Amino acid sequence: MVSEQETSREKPRSYLESGVNIALADQFVGHIKNLTGHTAAASGKLLPGAGGYAAVYKTDSGLNVACTTDGVGSKLLLCEELDCFDTIGIDLVAMCANDIICVGAAPALFLDYYACGSLDLKRSTSLIEGIVAGCKLADMLLVGGETAEMPDLYQSNHFDLAGFAVGFVAEGKLLTGESLKEGDFLVAVSSSGLHSNGFSLARKLIPEGSPLRAELLTPTEIYVRPFLQVLNELGSELTGAANITGGGWTNLLRLNKDCGFALKAMELSPVFEELARHVEPAELYRTFNMGMGFAVMVRSAESARAAIDIFARAGFAASVQGQVKSGHGVEIDCGKSTIFLE
Amino acid sequence: MVSEQETSREKPRSYLESGVNIALADQFVGHIKNLTGHTAAASGKLLPGAGGYAAVYKTDSGLNVACTTDGVGSKLLLCEELDCFDTIGIDLVAMCANDIICVGAAPALFLDYYACGSLDLKRSTSLIEGIVAGCKLADMLLVGGETAEMPDLYQSNHFDLAGFAVGFVAEGKLLTGESLKEGDFLVAVSSSGLHSNGFSLARKLIPEGSPLRAELLTPTEIYVRPFLQVLNELGSELTGAANITGGGWTNLLRLNKDCGFALKAMELSPVFEELARHVEPAELYRTFNMGMGFAVMVRSAESARAAIDIFARAGFAASVQGQVKSGHGVEIDCGKSTIFLE
Repeated sequence: MVSEQETSREKPRSYLESGVNIALADQFVGHIKNLTGHTAAASGKLLPGAGGYAAVYKTDSGLNVACTTDGVGSKLLLCEELDCFDTIGIDLVAMCANDIICVGAAPALFLDYYACGSLDLKRSTSLIEGIVAGCKLADMLLVGGETAEMPDLYQSNHFDLAGFAVGFVAEGKLLTGESLKEGDFLVAVSSSGLHSNGFSLARKLIPEGSPLRAELLTPTEIYVRPFLQVLNELGSELTGAANITGGGWTNLLRLNKDCGFALKAMELSPVFEELARHVEPAELYRTFNMGMGFAVMVRSAESARAAIDIFARAGFAASVQGQVKSGHGVEIDCGKSTIFLE
Repeated sequence: MVSEQETSREKPRSYLESGVNIALADQFVGHIKNLTGHTAAASGKLLPGAGGYAAVYKTDSGLNVACTTDGVGSKLLLCEELDCFDTIGIDLVAMCANDIICVGAAPALFLDYYACGSLDLKRSTSLIEGIVAGCKLADMLLVGGETAEMPDLYQSNHFDLAGFAVGFVAEGKLLTGESLKEGDFLVAVSSSGLHSNGFSLARKLIPEGSPLRAELLTPTEIYVRPFLQVLNELGSELTGAANITGGGWTNLLRLNKDCGFALKAMELSPVFEELARHVEPAELYRTFNMGMGFAVMVRSAESARAAIDIFARAGFAASVQGQVKSGHGVEIDCGKSTIFLE
């Protein structure tokens, strides 16, 4: 819960000021890679899934196993504040499922870790109902979970959730990002709002009592079904996919270090307009999805139209938001100024 | 950290009094089963892995995928108290790997979820080094993870860890517990202490400053290598396996509802002796492993000797602790009295 102290002091203007140190996290991830990198490479058992969205383990059967884990961040605290627990489970599934499809895998299995200070049966059941609903939307089976009651670690009304997803991908369907090249079209697909990223900052910028605050809880879109249709119908015309998750539009940089992206600015819904009143544009695009939660890259304008069509039939607004360019970084044309993310 | 208030008030005599309501958790798990049960059954894609230690997903390739998730409970708080973070990662891997082998699967992949109030690079690196060490002992690859910095959810020095493991099992090797029958021998394998269970209670019973308190941090044994050897060498002579994890010796009840177990009491090491000064025997066996962290069931005395031999060569003390009997429940002969767990 946001304390009064917190709301009365000056509002943070960046994710770092809100208490989340992405640079330090990146440094930590570098450490982890050093610790695990050579082990994994030496085993020769991992395939190069695009952007590290999911690890892909090669089996002898030709059907490879993709897996990933994610949480919902401090969106949890908003659930507590608004006493609303029935959709955060959808977020949890979405965060994992939208990652796993980025390597071309079809999500299949989901497990959850749920830790709390004290087990409240009504609330816990709501949480799980959300997870079950999310699994249905993502065509996954909820096959396991762990419930941990830790009265001395969590305050009684606090809890945390982590999700774990397993999917399968035939080697020919694997998306690696390697075939991305200059001129490819980037189709961006509408989000339902912030999804589950940037809440440590957003909770401090959208005031309690604002109708926008309840809107923040809108569950994360699940892109599984239309995206798998795009994957199947477009084949090698589809050259990459990016879940616009933590790190906002810097997620594009994960796909292929030899490519850059030139995008036009997003049209902002009221919640992003409000965030933009407090935060510089580059920081916004580095933290939030800005209204578009998923991106697919395709070889031609015709394929872009086909992808847009498939997403539209599934109820998602999608449009060509830009193109792959030579060089590196993500350039966003905001009219008067240009943002550059790297 | 245990507050002064907590240490000065009367010590809890049960897991419930320590703030962990197992009965409520069981009720919650029942709810979850109702929510997910028919979905999973309808899919016909899940195989009956023993005791639900791991979900086993049937693939067309004949190599089935087992997965599970677990945490390390409030052993985390002891890490903070003793400022020791380098082995809790071993615990995390162990908790998952020891579950996954109970269905006959060989662990292969591990992912971690790490959430904290504020990212401390030194501590976080220690945690991951422990996970990497655990993965080596369990012959798993650390293939992914999520690091979440949530300043408003966790106190700055607090953190939580969850682990996810994936393994593989050929259909012929799957352990279901179905073949367990009266007369089978139960071989118990030594633990390294409490492993990662019962800490909400144990932390309140072993006083700060006691040398036993540091001993509580001993990492959980990883039974993967000797157990997989037992599985391979004994074949159908091996009728079941149980990780003696949360719930202590009631874990045996997960394997086959048509069987009971008759055991002799464990010989207690000093830490369990100390716990026994405060807690009734039935509650002890329902909460802790009591010095034996894993159990395998085999058809004959000869197979029991073979299993004991394999564990001994891997450095584990193992012995015949009892037998499978008709009826139900776990009966533990403590000389003057008999404990009955059901």
